[in-house]
Amino acid sequence: MTRYSHPRLNDVSLEAALHALADPCRFAIVRRLAGQAGELSCQSAAQAGAVPKSTLSNHFKILRGAGLIRTRPAGREYLSSLRREEFDARFPGLLDTVLRQPQG
Amino acid sequence: MTRYSHPRLNDVSLEAALHALADPCRFAIVRRLAGQAGELSCQSAAQAGAVPKSTLSNHFKILRGAGLIRTRPAGREYLSSLRREEFDARFPGLLDTVLRQPQG
Repeated sequence: MTRYSHPRLNDVSLEAALHALADPCRFAIVRRLAGQAGELSCQSAAQAGAVPKSTLSNHFKILRGAGLIRTRPAGREYLSSLRREEFDARFPGLLDTVLRQPQG
Repeated sequence: MTRYSHPRLNDVSLEAALHALADPCRFAIVRRLAGQAGELSCQSAAQAGAVPKSTLSNHFKILRGAGLIRTRPAGREYLSSLRREEFDARFPGLLDTVLRQPQG
């Protein structure tokens, strides 16, 4: 199993954070993770039967790179969770504000 | 002189708004416009001697498309201003939150 690396939040730029959120699929993943207490597997976080696995992997990579999520191997799958406290400390109010925006 | 079209804010998606802000050059333009009472010419808004004019035009186009700015012809130049109230009404708190984020 791969052990993914995760950036320090201080090394994440505002542009990277906004870019990570500026995609409907990634935003849906973040929204689902924000609504969960714990962790989700990549497939269930994405609810993305129609999204190619490589595309999904890239979305998770971008989310990790923006300091939004942490992914860990667990048995035969990978579990991801929001780095909520760290992200909020780096970008105060940003995630809350984005998540409460009207959709559509 | 071109008369640019500007979308209704209701037709702007959250993803388009975040994407428009997720670029250092565009973000700098928005920050400068947010710090001004009035309007700025494209060149002075961007302070971008090093940025090719076509790149700059594209940045302004993306900002217009996201409902962030309005551009009007004025004599021999174009003046741009933030659509602050409209944008804030569509995406409450988003611009304020993004603008007060720590930089770098």
